[in-house]
Amino acid sequence: MTKTGSNTTAPTQLLQVSGRSYAYRRFGNGSGLPLLCLQHFTGTLDNWDPAVTDPLASGREVILFDSAGVGRSTGDVPETIAGMTEHALAFLDGLGIETCDVLGFSLGGMIAQQMAQDRPSVFGRMLLVGTAPRGGEDIMHLEKPSLAKHIQDPTNRGYDVLKKIFFAPTTTSQAAGAAFIARLMQRKDDRDPPAGPNVGAAQIAAFREWERFTGERFADLKGIRHPTLVVQGFEDEMIPVRNSYWLAENLPNAVLLVYPDAGHGSLFQYADSFTKQAVAFLSSDSESAVF
Amino acid sequence: MTKTGSNTTAPTQLLQVSGRSYAYRRFGNGSGLPLLCLQHFTGTLDNWDPAVTDPLASGREVILFDSAGVGRSTGDVPETIAGMTEHALAFLDGLGIETCDVLGFSLGGMIAQQMAQDRPSVFGRMLLVGTAPRGGEDIMHLEKPSLAKHIQDPTNRGYDVLKKIFFAPTTTSQAAGAAFIARLMQRKDDRDPPAGPNVGAAQIAAFREWERFTGERFADLKGIRHPTLVVQGFEDEMIPVRNSYWLAENLPNAVLLVYPDAGHGSLFQYADSFTKQAVAFLSSDSESAVF
Repeated sequence: MTKTGSNTTAPTQLLQVSGRSYAYRRFGNGSGLPLLCLQHFTGTLDNWDPAVTDPLASGREVILFDSAGVGRSTGDVPETIAGMTEHALAFLDGLGIETCDVLGFSLGGMIAQQMAQDRPSVFGRMLLVGTAPRGGEDIMHLEKPSLAKHIQDPTNRGYDVLKKIFFAPTTTSQAAGAAFIARLMQRKDDRDPPAGPNVGAAQIAAFREWERFTGERFADLKGIRHPTLVVQGFEDEMIPVRNSYWLAENLPNAVLLVYPDAGHGSLFQYADSFTKQAVAFLSSDSESAVF
Repeated sequence: MTKTGSNTTAPTQLLQVSGRSYAYRRFGNGSGLPLLCLQHFTGTLDNWDPAVTDPLASGREVILFDSAGVGRSTGDVPETIAGMTEHALAFLDGLGIETCDVLGFSLGGMIAQQMAQDRPSVFGRMLLVGTAPRGGEDIMHLEKPSLAKHIQDPTNRGYDVLKKIFFAPTTTSQAAGAAFIARLMQRKDDRDPPAGPNVGAAQIAAFREWERFTGERFADLKGIRHPTLVVQGFEDEMIPVRNSYWLAENLPNAVLLVYPDAGHGSLFQYADSFTKQAVAFLSSDSESAVF
């Protein structure tokens, strides 16, 4: 595969929509539908691992997106997934993209599910990684001891916390975490500002709202017919794997892939495997998720 | 890939070990370790779908095996997984195979786990499909209504029952089941005799014994370090998918892959996908299960 773009070098662009400004990067090409990448809690464009984005960009355009109030996107951070969904749809409308594929990671996977429900035609195929359905459990409870001990540890500086909470506490997984952090740092210029505390607070409110459900649990998922690949690590402490079980069991057309010795950042730890599987999945023209 | 052998045409062979006779077929070639295939409840050599065995035989020898008392193998059917494990090990010893890979399906997956525990050096990589760990739940309860209604239905003849209980009750899955049955019937000569009621009774006794556990549940799995790929269908009624969750969560080095709209026979329904994934997994020379 020829490298046709990289998140290490792609310029950040700004799209004006209704007086708001959305920051994004767009790179790669090929015959596939564009792939919209929806980011995790407090993550910006710079949190997308080039080892994941760049191989995907060899067969399609990859579009990274900062939602409102994140990175260089203006506006307030919504306190619901529904609010973030409106921004993502407005962004695609602004770009003139009617249908794309989606890689929704963690928070981004929840937004992807809501987008698929609100406007089914917006997606062809969906990659949902390290995420949870509405009504899921133990979603991003940063106050629980297994996470709080890393977040509150004053010896963790910069991306150290990310390495601790995105990767399993094994030598192998922590080494993969260090390599991931190094890849994130390869981009030297035109970086996003890191998310401030207001971003985290609003997004946590959105997680709490997403844990609530009315009526039959997970029934909404039955209506999402898109071919979907659900991916997670067995050792995910941020959003435990049972959320992916529920997601894939209740989506009518989903394959489930779970990685060992991996936490929330399974797609970054196993970037080679993940991108190989994702490319095979995205390249399929079957109506089935099976690839 | 060049086709180097097929379960439709490979001759049945007999191996004499300690006065017993084991029936088997062996075909294919390539640089991979031989792949021992361990069969499901009451299944014989003729229940191996050529759409699964033949693509795998393009890179390695595939060895199909009738355990004692099944097909043309002599002796009594053991009433424990441990007893069946002794036969499988004796068979490999008789062939002079010290190390191979394994595809254990359903009952065969339980035997594979026991073999890996009793003699770790016997396997390189393990494919465990539609199976359960010791201490699993709802393993092959043919008396439960969702299965009994098909087994006791007098209008189901021959392989009709297999189509009903191995595949999901959807049009797509039942069509895949019909195609599977047609592939099993492609072999015209040198077929195994079908298993009689004594085979089923002994194997059911082995399932009941396998459901029991002492000490910490699933603790035995922690010692099985082999790279393992666990595969199942979400709609498996014979051995529900939660058994694969437990298996892959507790094996320290296992990837989990679950297929939608598929029952116990997910590997046959999605033979193209399964064999592609299995070949990628078996061909890896990493110590990790991730491929």
